[in-house]
Amino acid sequence: MDNIKDYVNKNQERFLNELIELLKLPSISADSAYKNDMLKTANAVKASLENAGCDNVEICQTDGYPIVYGEKIIDAKLPTILVYGHYDVQPADPLELWTSPPFEPIIKKTELHPDGAIFARGACDDKGQMYMHVKALEFMTSTNQLPCNVKFMIEGEEEVGSVNLSTFVKNNREKLKNDVILISDTGMIAKDVPSITTGLRGLSYVEVEVTGPNRDLHSGLYGGAVANPINVLTKMIASLHDENNHITIPGFYDKVEELSKEERNEMAKAPFSLDSYKKSLDIDDVYGEKGYTTNERNSIRPTLDVNGIWGGYIGEGAKTVIASKAFAKISMRLVPHQDWEEITQLFKTHFESIAPEGVKVKVKPHHGGQGYVTPIDSIGYQAASKAYEESFGKKPIPQRSGGSIPIVALFEQELKSKTILMGFGLDSDAIHSPNEHYGIWNYFKGIETIPLFYKYFTELSK
Amino acid sequence: MDNIKDYVNKNQERFLNELIELLKLPSISADSAYKNDMLKTANAVKASLENAGCDNVEICQTDGYPIVYGEKIIDAKLPTILVYGHYDVQPADPLELWTSPPFEPIIKKTELHPDGAIFARGACDDKGQMYMHVKALEFMTSTNQLPCNVKFMIEGEEEVGSVNLSTFVKNNREKLKNDVILISDTGMIAKDVPSITTGLRGLSYVEVEVTGPNRDLHSGLYGGAVANPINVLTKMIASLHDENNHITIPGFYDKVEELSKEERNEMAKAPFSLDSYKKSLDIDDVYGEKGYTTNERNSIRPTLDVNGIWGGYIGEGAKTVIASKAFAKISMRLVPHQDWEEITQLFKTHFESIAPEGVKVKVKPHHGGQGYVTPIDSIGYQAASKAYEESFGKKPIPQRSGGSIPIVALFEQELKSKTILMGFGLDSDAIHSPNEHYGIWNYFKGIETIPLFYKYFTELSK
Repeated sequence: MDNIKDYVNKNQERFLNELIELLKLPSISADSAYKNDMLKTANAVKASLENAGCDNVEICQTDGYPIVYGEKIIDAKLPTILVYGHYDVQPADPLELWTSPPFEPIIKKTELHPDGAIFARGACDDKGQMYMHVKALEFMTSTNQLPCNVKFMIEGEEEVGSVNLSTFVKNNREKLKNDVILISDTGMIAKDVPSITTGLRGLSYVEVEVTGPNRDLHSGLYGGAVANPINVLTKMIASLHDENNHITIPGFYDKVEELSKEERNEMAKAPFSLDSYKKSLDIDDVYGEKGYTTNERNSIRPTLDVNGIWGGYIGEGAKTVIASKAFAKISMRLVPHQDWEEITQLFKTHFESIAPEGVKVKVKPHHGGQGYVTPIDSIGYQAASKAYEESFGKKPIPQRSGGSIPIVALFEQELKSKTILMGFGLDSDAIHSPNEHYGIWNYFKGIETIPLFYKYFTELSK
Repeated sequence: MDNIKDYVNKNQERFLNELIELLKLPSISADSAYKNDMLKTANAVKASLENAGCDNVEICQTDGYPIVYGEKIIDAKLPTILVYGHYDVQPADPLELWTSPPFEPIIKKTELHPDGAIFARGACDDKGQMYMHVKALEFMTSTNQLPCNVKFMIEGEEEVGSVNLSTFVKNNREKLKNDVILISDTGMIAKDVPSITTGLRGLSYVEVEVTGPNRDLHSGLYGGAVANPINVLTKMIASLHDENNHITIPGFYDKVEELSKEERNEMAKAPFSLDSYKKSLDIDDVYGEKGYTTNERNSIRPTLDVNGIWGGYIGEGAKTVIASKAFAKISMRLVPHQDWEEITQLFKTHFESIAPEGVKVKVKPHHGGQGYVTPIDSIGYQAASKAYEESFGKKPIPQRSGGSIPIVALFEQELKSKTILMGFGLDSDAIHSPNEHYGIWNYFKGIETIPLFYKYFTELSK
């Protein structure tokens, strides 16, 4: 691709400002209070695709938030890339921990980002990474260098499980037909260590409710005589891990793929400093499943984490009460071959079975998705590898991510094509956390690298 | 006491309306947002004491909320009764469970209260029971039947530990000098089973904070690799009870008084139906320390209950986050001889010692108080017994309460006098819970019985 660097340099300011405008919209899919902002965001994405040269851009209605679709078909004989991304973001709370308002993007320099980083919810996950593809397309169309066909599918429910997207995909196999799916919704090891994500974990997300007495009770008059739903919930949750931090749900590990010594040695080669890891999180030690390293624990091993817990009096001061109910949101990260619906059922059956007398327990499945692994000998992976090599000056490392993009496994199943995960974020970007940010350098580097993938994928497909 | 019944009948409506006005004030001491309402309530109590015939009524400032003091000294040679009560109330949440607003009192009939009950936060605990004493005094002064001296001390911090009251008592021993302390802030077994509370449990209330990583983290990227403060907190709390529901804190039971077989048999005689107990709470079984009955578990045994827990994402929908912090409010009910400050220290030492690597744990003591037992052969108990016998037509049963009035032990220590707990509430009054109420019958019965205590206490003191 000629002069892509020049093009980016010339348009840097506009590229930043356009993204900043998009980041000002609080498109939180988990909270229905933001419905209007979600629709505004979908329209903004539609406009940006049209400006980038997409044809037939449309807002596709679903039972939930709409999906923005657009395409540029230049020759039916040429390969087609399907770009997937999402315009919804995680909730921003706890707000008090943000150093600047989550939906008032500002650029600040950081140790890792001397050129500056955009601080805003969604800056990296996924508006910033999704918008790189829009700008890459703009470059290719405006300089007549688009080497193949492209389709865009940008959804608004990734952070809540992509339930309606899966229906949309099943109903639009022809429209979405493609030779490879390209996604930037993951990270890379470091700015000087480019990597391609070859694995994703699956997810099962549930909410549990423990009900004891039919009303809140005085802890003096009833304390010690009736089951306290909060005490019971803590016992039940605590029992889900044994002393080695193995998960105790019967059958949970049955289908877990055990990696070979060789594969684990290969993984161990990825640069990683436990000290700087601990330092960056301000923890005196790591914690996890016995027998596995930190990088294995958060990539090739399944996990169970409480994402939220609440019950009783949580206001200022003291209240001597025994709550009638206690709640928790619990998510399990799954590895390839674990079926999320089966795991959800195993959890439900087990959790209900360990409820002591005196309480009633409800388990409400929230959402989930399958894990995914992609081979490194595919044309897609090779094209991505050459693209990184050209723009970063070094070969990228294949890497398993601990995160989940539930829809990826479904893409392969329904559309029969592989997904290439070209992520440009860093673990330190604090996605899903206060002060999420995305390095300007990473943003521009992504815009530079993406067209090279188009070029090599088209060449290798010949 | 002549014609007390007639006096109550004649003034029923006014007695109800005056209490209802007092209940309209949201005097929540735990939440500083209600500071002004607290002060308004103190002034309302002051006015009511003046109207009832008290002299030298004053609002005594403290480092917290003021104490209302008043007295009626008719003859230095006669005995003096010190009436204690509190004008603060528990927080009203969860508001959505109230069938009528907590600070808009209304009278509704219930199965147990065919004459109706006043529904409002504080109706029973303690505005309703405290106000019985004000109206009883009004009767005695307005009919010239006050047989002895009386002092009133009504505080505004009982629900948050009476910290400033204890200072006030220590600094005003002479002013508060008395022969017996009279309190209505407990319950009785049933409307047809009058009882006098002879024991109270002590209390230690703490708040714990578990801190893991220095920020909220993406549960996919970090899940399973760092200590999740919520998972850790559940493990730590769960470990505080063993499989027999004994509390595992080293030294916790060292000073617990073990009752004799005889005493336990005596207790077991109090009328109690486990079936209706379970039915009233809609639970399929009770739950508690092995080897003890329900009535023993909530009176003569110490307990540990979580009163509130929170951490992570507790909003609508799902957020895949590992929280940086998790919190819980925990209270322990203590029995006589357990020192609350010692127990608080034992808890702190133990809880901090069981923190796993990877987290930091803070334990913040909130407040507490000692337990209390009173003999049944004192003049005060005998006078109360005769008063109940006359107004209820049957001898009252002595009973240990599971509740705590932290200040009672301090009264005995500082003022060298015994406390008589004449409670007229019922366990079903839902104090500290949504829909707290107080039976009109109980309210009037209390006003009728209190002057009889004055009469018999004065006679027996001769």
